[in-house]
Amino acid sequence: MVKVGIVGGTGYTGVELLRLLASHQEVEVVAITSRAESGRRVDDLYPNLRGIYDLAYTEPAPKTLAACDIVFFATPHNVAMNLVPELLAAGTRVIDLSADYRIRDDQLWSKWYGEPHASPELLADAVYGLPEVNRAQIVDAQLLACPGCYPTSVQLGLIPLLSRGLVDPAHLIASSASGVSGAGRQAKIDNLLSEVSDSFKAYGVAGHRHLPEIEQGLSDVAGSPVSLTFVPHLLPMIRGIHSTLFAQLNDSAVDLQGLYEQWYVDEPFVDVLPAGVFPQTRTVKGANRCQISLQVPQGRDTVVIMVAIDNLVKGASGQAIQNMNIMLGLPEDMGLKQIGLLP
Amino acid sequence: MVKVGIVGGTGYTGVELLRLLASHQEVEVVAITSRAESGRRVDDLYPNLRGIYDLAYTEPAPKTLAACDIVFFATPHNVAMNLVPELLAAGTRVIDLSADYRIRDDQLWSKWYGEPHASPELLADAVYGLPEVNRAQIVDAQLLACPGCYPTSVQLGLIPLLSRGLVDPAHLIASSASGVSGAGRQAKIDNLLSEVSDSFKAYGVAGHRHLPEIEQGLSDVAGSPVSLTFVPHLLPMIRGIHSTLFAQLNDSAVDLQGLYEQWYVDEPFVDVLPAGVFPQTRTVKGANRCQISLQVPQGRDTVVIMVAIDNLVKGASGQAIQNMNIMLGLPEDMGLKQIGLLP
Amino acid sequence: MVKVGIVGGTGYTGVELLRLLASHQEVEVVAITSRAESGRRVDDLYPNLRGIYDLAYTEPAPKTLAACDIVFFATPHNVAMNLVPELLAAGTRVIDLSADYRIRDDQLWSKWYGEPHASPELLADAVYGLPEVNRAQIVDAQLLACPGCYPTSVQLGLIPLLSRGLVDPAHLIASSASGVSGAGRQAKIDNLLSEVSDSFKAYGVAGHRHLPEIEQGLSDVAGSPVSLTFVPHLLPMIRGIHSTLFAQLNDSAVDLQGLYEQWYVDEPFVDVLPAGVFPQTRTVKGANRCQISLQVPQGRDTVVIMVAIDNLVKGASGQAIQNMNIMLGLPEDMGLKQIGLLP
Amino acid sequence: MVKVGIVGGTGYTGVELLRLLASHQEVEVVAITSRAESGRRVDDLYPNLRGIYDLAYTEPAPKTLAACDIVFFATPHNVAMNLVPELLAAGTRVIDLSADYRIRDDQLWSKWYGEPHASPELLADAVYGLPEVNRAQIVDAQLLACPGCYPTSVQLGLIPLLSRGLVDPAHLIASSASGVSGAGRQAKIDNLLSEVSDSFKAYGVAGHRHLPEIEQGLSDVAGSPVSLTFVPHLLPMIRGIHSTLFAQLNDSAVDLQGLYEQWYVDEPFVDVLPAGVFPQTRTVKGANRCQISLQVPQGRDTVVIMVAIDNLVKGASGQAIQNMNIMLGLPEDMGLKQIGLLP
Repeated sequence: MVKVGIVGGTGYTGVELLRLLASHQEVEVVAITSRAESGRRVDDLYPNLRGIYDLAYTEPAPKTLAACDIVFFATPHNVAMNLVPELLAAGTRVIDLSADYRIRDDQLWSKWYGEPHASPELLADAVYGLPEVNRAQIVDAQLLACPGCYPTSVQLGLIPLLSRGLVDPAHLIASSASGVSGAGRQAKIDNLLSEVSDSFKAYGVAGHRHLPEIEQGLSDVAGSPVSLTFVPHLLPMIRGIHSTLFAQLNDSAVDLQGLYEQWYVDEPFVDVLPAGVFPQTRTVKGANRCQISLQVPQGRDTVVIMVAIDNLVKGASGQAIQNMNIMLGLPEDMGLKQIGLLP
Repeated sequence: MVKVGIVGGTGYTGVELLRLLASHQEVEVVAITSRAESGRRVDDLYPNLRGIYDLAYTEPAPKTLAACDIVFFATPHNVAMNLVPELLAAGTRVIDLSADYRIRDDQLWSKWYGEPHASPELLADAVYGLPEVNRAQIVDAQLLACPGCYPTSVQLGLIPLLSRGLVDPAHLIASSASGVSGAGRQAKIDNLLSEVSDSFKAYGVAGHRHLPEIEQGLSDVAGSPVSLTFVPHLLPMIRGIHSTLFAQLNDSAVDLQGLYEQWYVDEPFVDVLPAGVFPQTRTVKGANRCQISLQVPQGRDTVVIMVAIDNLVKGASGQAIQNMNIMLGLPEDMGLKQIGLLP
Repeated sequence: MVKVGIVGGTGYTGVELLRLLASHQEVEVVAITSRAESGRRVDDLYPNLRGIYDLAYTEPAPKTLAACDIVFFATPHNVAMNLVPELLAAGTRVIDLSADYRIRDDQLWSKWYGEPHASPELLADAVYGLPEVNRAQIVDAQLLACPGCYPTSVQLGLIPLLSRGLVDPAHLIASSASGVSGAGRQAKIDNLLSEVSDSFKAYGVAGHRHLPEIEQGLSDVAGSPVSLTFVPHLLPMIRGIHSTLFAQLNDSAVDLQGLYEQWYVDEPFVDVLPAGVFPQTRTVKGANRCQISLQVPQGRDTVVIMVAIDNLVKGASGQAIQNMNIMLGLPEDMGLKQIGLLP
Repeated sequence: MVKVGIVGGTGYTGVELLRLLASHQEVEVVAITSRAESGRRVDDLYPNLRGIYDLAYTEPAPKTLAACDIVFFATPHNVAMNLVPELLAAGTRVIDLSADYRIRDDQLWSKWYGEPHASPELLADAVYGLPEVNRAQIVDAQLLACPGCYPTSVQLGLIPLLSRGLVDPAHLIASSASGVSGAGRQAKIDNLLSEVSDSFKAYGVAGHRHLPEIEQGLSDVAGSPVSLTFVPHLLPMIRGIHSTLFAQLNDSAVDLQGLYEQWYVDEPFVDVLPAGVFPQTRTVKGANRCQISLQVPQGRDTVVIMVAIDNLVKGASGQAIQNMNIMLGLPEDMGLKQIGLLP
């Protein structure tokens, strides 16, 4: 059994790792850390796990973590970049669900996160864990940077078009919406049910931290810089991200439906829907799946791509396990066969 | 007292008219019709109105309606266009909340609604009831076509930019989202709580019936045809529309915040928020108010305008009463002083 | 105009006072305090109030407050009991929405709130502000203790039965459920949307602080001690309290429907529904109204009473204004004519 | 592989059977019927199942169904009782999720369902599928009547107390609440999101069809007739049932926590929570699990038992599969290892 540790196990991506790994035959969670809840049983905080795990939270001791084969960081940014060097030195492979190693340029990272990067020397070797783009490099990754939730949805939606040079890369638009679990499990008035239920709003319009990550990824596949206007919104629900993407076509003769179906035909977790069927976040709730649809309204020159994922699964913990499977040479869908909980 | 009738009083815009008119000092609701609920007391169907109205639903008899000074049609499309000619002939003024008289071109109307228009001869004289554009014409309207909910939000958001020619009119984008009450009170599986709660999706992407109405209105203010990509989404909540609008600026030197504040400075129901504050649907819930914000992310060439209204108030019944007040020469905010119900 | 001050104006009962008082013709809010938000405009925190109030939060200075005719405390417990003596001494009348003066026995209060009462000498003169019971005493109240939300719903539901001695007072049961706004606007993980949406649970089963208040009130009307099993639950929504009450009848021949209708016939804000119609929280949302229904299932010996109120209105701020109107000799429904926002 | 058929596969219990059976190693779904959707692919209606099943709905042909080893009826009442005799005659075992065979007394059934029973001769041999009570009889059942959702929660909560004779059986109270999915997937105005979101109400107070089923089951374990006051409520969410049960203790010296823990110690799907921890529906969402807690508030003579299940899993489809496993001699938890989806 592969020994797995989780740093930051009280948050939503932490408990989601636990939920998914419970059905994984080849790994065993041997350590889960939390400074605030050290000593408390995991199933006391999360009673859905009673009878599943016999684990308690511990302080994040490097020695314990270094004894793991793989350590997941399910932490806010600024935690992993301080602990990872020691773990890598000990030969432990790291899958970081936070933003610390997603952006290759440490100056750009500092600009968006407001502080110097603590281990910039690792950025060059960190592998960006979007399997649909980087599968080959993921196999041998020692340090894997798991993509953000919005970036996963936007990139999977635009990659075929940009790879083929079919749209204007200077005027891409992403109107995305996320459930509140994307904001994490933190005591903030802004995320109280009484504040965000029954309402809808945009936020971070002037500049959201996921923007540079998305533009980096899209520029890579486009082969030249792209410019994206990215507007995230907050949905009055727990799980799910939906991105509605707009781009101006420079060639209206291409069979876009065929392009997308072909592009993702071998991908186990990307599902291009039949023409005319649009994704809903509920059909991927709890599942490591991305559903995509596209349309050219009125046959004009703007293409609309719609993408739905569960922000905690394909947008975080499920994708992390998918990467782990690739890194370990296991079947890519091991532990990831959950079906969307509908209704 | 002005005598008011309501045709189609069991739907959500009907009961919302009743809620708002209850605080209006100059009108009295004397008739409310429903074929399905004829004979049933209004407050039996809507117990929030107990003690407020002593009314029962009746069959929609032209004679009764013609005895009213003003008749509201709170019906699906295809009802008003058959009854209105008789009422106008009797001297009754009509405020139609449905789509029947919103589009001036009856051929275009037929294309989107799939049937011939029953009274196309009235289209030329019907006044489109967006007070912020048409206040002068509304005063003498005999037949007023109340704008749709999405069209109200999109037009109020784009009018200043298009009027001043500041953006590319050929590539406008509206990513809008509506609460489920916009779908009306009809027995459809698609709108069950179990189907649409906890989820988010786009719909009508290939072509929503509000598109021609919006393009007509925007083209009017732009002075030339505009082209809009309009993608509506369904929110897992009851009330509220939020439109996120994108346009490419052809002049980046203009003070857009100042432009919008100035444009709407005298409008009682349009509220341009301070720079950096974004609208939320909850702050306008139950209120006849449109809140607008705008941003140029990263100082690039795409402007983002965010607009929030309550689809049942400024997007329907409140706007209808605002129009009625203008038509009657009353203070425009009479009966419309409700404050957004927050939290 | 009566000068009104509000202490603790950032919470939900504070903003609800502002919403309701905006339509009150005889009072003017001249001061609103908040230590945390001092200096900030009220409509910056609550944009639904833009254009309605030109007020900013201030520090809670006794001098400013003492200049008011009436001061509302919309604070957690433990604030009013320290400030009220000074205000009363200055001749200012106080309406306390918190729990500080609801329980007459300061030892009992201390037992449930875990600290000594700071001004126990005022408890004897504080008037419990349930107008349906205490209207006469409220008129001259200098210090009014506004009932809690659960206590309002449970008392209004059981008073007729207990007053008439029709049920076993030793085995009363209240299974109540509240929207999350009842927990206030505080940064707690427990009330995040991601924690309480899509779920339902009981809480405080071993003993909720509203229990002694309810038993005190019910014992008063029963004329002897009553015993209540009170189980509150948390609903995945913002506003509304629903109490389902069970009691064993000792006389099955009484016309209970007639009793209740007669009991509340003159009450402006208590509405006994027709037999067979059950209350819903949505029909009283935003309204100062209590709707009650009762049933004896299967004609057995247990009566079920259902009660719905809006916890922020009849359960807090609306009731406070109702009390204020009585204290000022104004029409009891002034400023309280809002209709339930349905749908 | 065991061949399984599902009658009524478009409803929520039908699609839930499909979701759960997808992870079951020993069965294969070979037929799924729907008159309304005959010919349509299952994953067209339920896109969460894309790639999981290659099935289309068919007409409910007895011949096809009789070729199955086991047929589930996921239908409204009044369907199974007409088709089951033919299937049983063909040697097919039947698991009926509807109410048709739950009540042994056909006169009582007729009284509550308003029509004669179509196959009363089968009632005596139908086995009531509550494994925690009837496991031994379930093994050989040819016709299994799967318990209702409310009845499962109420019975599991009261069985230990009634079996041991610890409470007054004449005054049991159940205040239950269910998510809207319990009402099924039918086009009814009453279950629109706009009607039931953001609200809470009791319904069926005069007499809900689950009452006789519950009283039958409780009387069996009590050994004499019991009387229950049962009030169901509708929760503004999709999944989950929570029952709060009240009973008067006739012996206050018993260690109830110990009794319950011991009673269910070997049950794989009943989880008695530690003292002071109360169940939440979210911790069992999507899982075949019943969580129970109990409390004697204030140490008085009324015990409160709280029970949470997912109405579609332990309250329907999960329990049906649990019964199937017992009938087939398979491990009872096969295909039922899903963990509650939290958050």
